[in-house]
Amino acid sequence: MKLGRLNHVGVATPSIEASIAFYRDVMGATVIRAPFDLPAQGVKVCFVDTPNSQIELIEPLGEASPIHGFLAKNPAGGQHHLCYEVPDIHEAKAWFEAKGCKVLGEPRIGAHGTPIFFVHPKDMGGVLTEIMETPREGH
Amino acid sequence: MKLGRLNHVGVATPSIEASIAFYRDVMGATVIRAPFDLPAQGVKVCFVDTPNSQIELIEPLGEASPIHGFLAKNPAGGQHHLCYEVPDIHEAKAWFEAKGCKVLGEPRIGAHGTPIFFVHPKDMGGVLTEIMETPREGH
Repeated sequence: MKLGRLNHVGVATPSIEASIAFYRDVMGATVIRAPFDLPAQGVKVCFVDTPNSQIELIEPLGEASPIHGFLAKNPAGGQHHLCYEVPDIHEAKAWFEAKGCKVLGEPRIGAHGTPIFFVHPKDMGGVLTEIMETPREGH
Repeated sequence: MKLGRLNHVGVATPSIEASIAFYRDVMGATVIRAPFDLPAQGVKVCFVDTPNSQIELIEPLGEASPIHGFLAKNPAGGQHHLCYEVPDIHEAKAWFEAKGCKVLGEPRIGAHGTPIFFVHPKDMGGVLTEIMETPREGH
């Protein structure tokens, strides 16, 4: 497998609304996508485009959101995960499993509408890593 | 100011040597630059290219390295900072200061040979942020 595009950096936030204002007014972002709910992942999501990648703002959605624990430790928010693209999600899952990495659950549809899975940070140099099938129609 | 390229994601590691093996053998990186010391920052550095950005592996260099504290909390390593490019480092410093963000020290030469500064995570949504003048001859 070859290392793919860094599709996005996942950044947890207690408030997507406040983070949008920050990325627009302080960071100078000019392309901020409409936020939307991703109930299957327990998050509300908003993509901020950089010229070469994206920041994925993630806010807890619902009581069981996996982001609550992160925000309890990091109340202001912070870097949550890195997401790389792969051409085929099932080949990628088999690859990481063969390398002894803990894949968290089966591939499911992610924020870009293509299948994704996460790999446990303990096997990834401490980095929670999302693997995402490249969208067919670009980014 | 307009949001610039995500030049790299800084990833702290207790061992650049082990991380190089991980990025090569597990992540499938094909372009891994030669590691080098950056004594002024108290780090050893190694860039791993993705098709659109870079991972900057950083290992502590010397007793006073600012990475020791991070690794004490995250022994396996993990995401340390995000680095964005700007066209002019002094304009960028004035911009962030005018926005009330805490710029950490004066601009100094960073790992890519151009001036950089860091902005305190408390003013950046919990993300330690490096601002870097775009290299003149590409990346």
